[in-house]
Amino acid sequence: MIHISPDLPSDPCLDVPVRIYYYDTDAGGVVHNIAYLRHIEEARTRLAEHLGWSLLEMARNVVAPVVARTEIDYVKPARLGDLLVIHSKLDRLGKASFSISFVVERPADGSIIVRCHQTLACLQMDKGRPIRTPIEWRNQWPHLAV
Amino acid sequence: MIHISPDLPSDPCLDVPVRIYYYDTDAGGVVHNIAYLRHIEEARTRLAEHLGWSLLEMARNVVAPVVARTEIDYVKPARLGDLLVIHSKLDRLGKASFSISFVVERPADGSIIVRCHQTLACLQMDKGRPIRTPIEWRNQWPHLAV
Amino acid sequence: MIHISPDLPSDPCLDVPVRIYYYDTDAGGVVHNIAYLRHIEEARTRLAEHLGWSLLEMARNVVAPVVARTEIDYVKPARLGDLLVIHSKLDRLGKASFSISFVVERPADGSIIVRCHQTLACLQMDKGRPIRTPIEWRNQWPHLAV
Amino acid sequence: MIHISPDLPSDPCLDVPVRIYYYDTDAGGVVHNIAYLRHIEEARTRLAEHLGWSLLEMARNVVAPVVARTEIDYVKPARLGDLLVIHSKLDRLGKASFSISFVVERPADGSIIVRCHQTLACLQMDKGRPIRTPIEWRNQWPHLAV
Repeated sequence: MIHISPDLPSDPCLDVPVRIYYYDTDAGGVVHNIAYLRHIEEARTRLAEHLGWSLLEMARNVVAPVVARTEIDYVKPARLGDLLVIHSKLDRLGKASFSISFVVERPADGSIIVRCHQTLACLQMDKGRPIRTPIEWRNQWPHLAV
Repeated sequence: MIHISPDLPSDPCLDVPVRIYYYDTDAGGVVHNIAYLRHIEEARTRLAEHLGWSLLEMARNVVAPVVARTEIDYVKPARLGDLLVIHSKLDRLGKASFSISFVVERPADGSIIVRCHQTLACLQMDKGRPIRTPIEWRNQWPHLAV
Repeated sequence: MIHISPDLPSDPCLDVPVRIYYYDTDAGGVVHNIAYLRHIEEARTRLAEHLGWSLLEMARNVVAPVVARTEIDYVKPARLGDLLVIHSKLDRLGKASFSISFVVERPADGSIIVRCHQTLACLQMDKGRPIRTPIEWRNQWPHLAV
Repeated sequence: MIHISPDLPSDPCLDVPVRIYYYDTDAGGVVHNIAYLRHIEEARTRLAEHLGWSLLEMARNVVAPVVARTEIDYVKPARLGDLLVIHSKLDRLGKASFSISFVVERPADGSIIVRCHQTLACLQMDKGRPIRTPIEWRNQWPHLAV
């Protein structure tokens, strides 16, 4: 079972700012396609914490959401020094999995840089066994349940 | 225009072996989801070279295939020390883009670990301008053209 | 020449907080040794900006500090979910290079996790040519000049 | 205790070839400083296996060499498409730690790209406890023991 802290937000979404450093770029002069997925992992983890499921809880109980599928569209290139914002939103709640949509935006010119959708399975890591998604989430946002 | 070396294989596919090191794993004890995309980049680049489009040609003429979309399914976990094979296959040839499918397999037990599909756009990197896919590819594998 | 914005702090140092996510860890259950260097790059870039040398200035004039040498000692392991702080400090100002010391600390128990020292060369990236370190820095912190 | 397979080479060194892909480069047009450390991890792991200490043995017994210190000098830049070779050599054998030197060379022009020296501690990962370096190594290369 997953322990969720009780104060849940009314909307299951979060905005996380991201700066682009040299490490994120490649010799094409733009952000490398894989670098966005690191930033999306940060956004996803911070969304999970915003929804009451902390990294410490994941580490202690060896229960974690594991990426089962990623779809990502690279719409426009971002560059060194860009300030981006990742808008993350829980958009589907299944019995043992859930989905999050991500939009990476560059506020300076309003450009959409990347769109991404991930499906995550709740797993007991040491046994590789599926676990139910948090009941508190299904109570709080019943319109997302499937 | 993209310069393709003349000797093309009859089938546009390639198998690339991959070893799993500590760097690829995470605290869940399995290969981290992002690590596969680095190995898929290696497989993709080696497939491009197998199909006559070398990295040196990309670097010299600043013309490169750029990832426009990735879909990736994580089927089974792989672990430290695993020997994997990535089967890559050109499966669609558009006017300015093409697609590759990847299957990551663990030969030791025949498990499918990951399935991935990427769409790449041919770009003049310095101008961000689309370029035609290689005519030699469309001549060699006309059944893939769309 | 490097353009430095005029308001310089009295001490050339900065503290940057860092969260540890799954991506940073490995199958040993601890933060992977290479992951610290990504976080140190972020700390270093933010220190450069704090000292008036912005990433946009680097990108626009293709003048950047390039890592010439890294020494890093791994003192204690950090783990998933840890909150760390990187203390960065400019500690030597040569004619065409400078040095920064980094201490990565875990405030929760006061542990020193990592000590690092980097030497950076100022380079005109497109020509690979050395450039003088900022005169404003040598004026502001003459005791660091060698 | 660490289990070492019995057939040890006369010299404790190994050469590993490395290709440079887009992922390794940054917007400066050269290989990013951190990318070399990934390739050095591969070279180090393959050297360990060449010296009879396999990744599977590490994973099964949760005993592994852990990086305690890295010194790395960036001598010349490498670029997209370069073929490099990493020369690795065990050069010191302590009671609970050992050292390896690495030279990254570009055979095409004989350039030294990077020099690196790492100290590794042998650890029981789950307990964080130091373990003796392999007795077989000290028997085979007594001139390296300190």
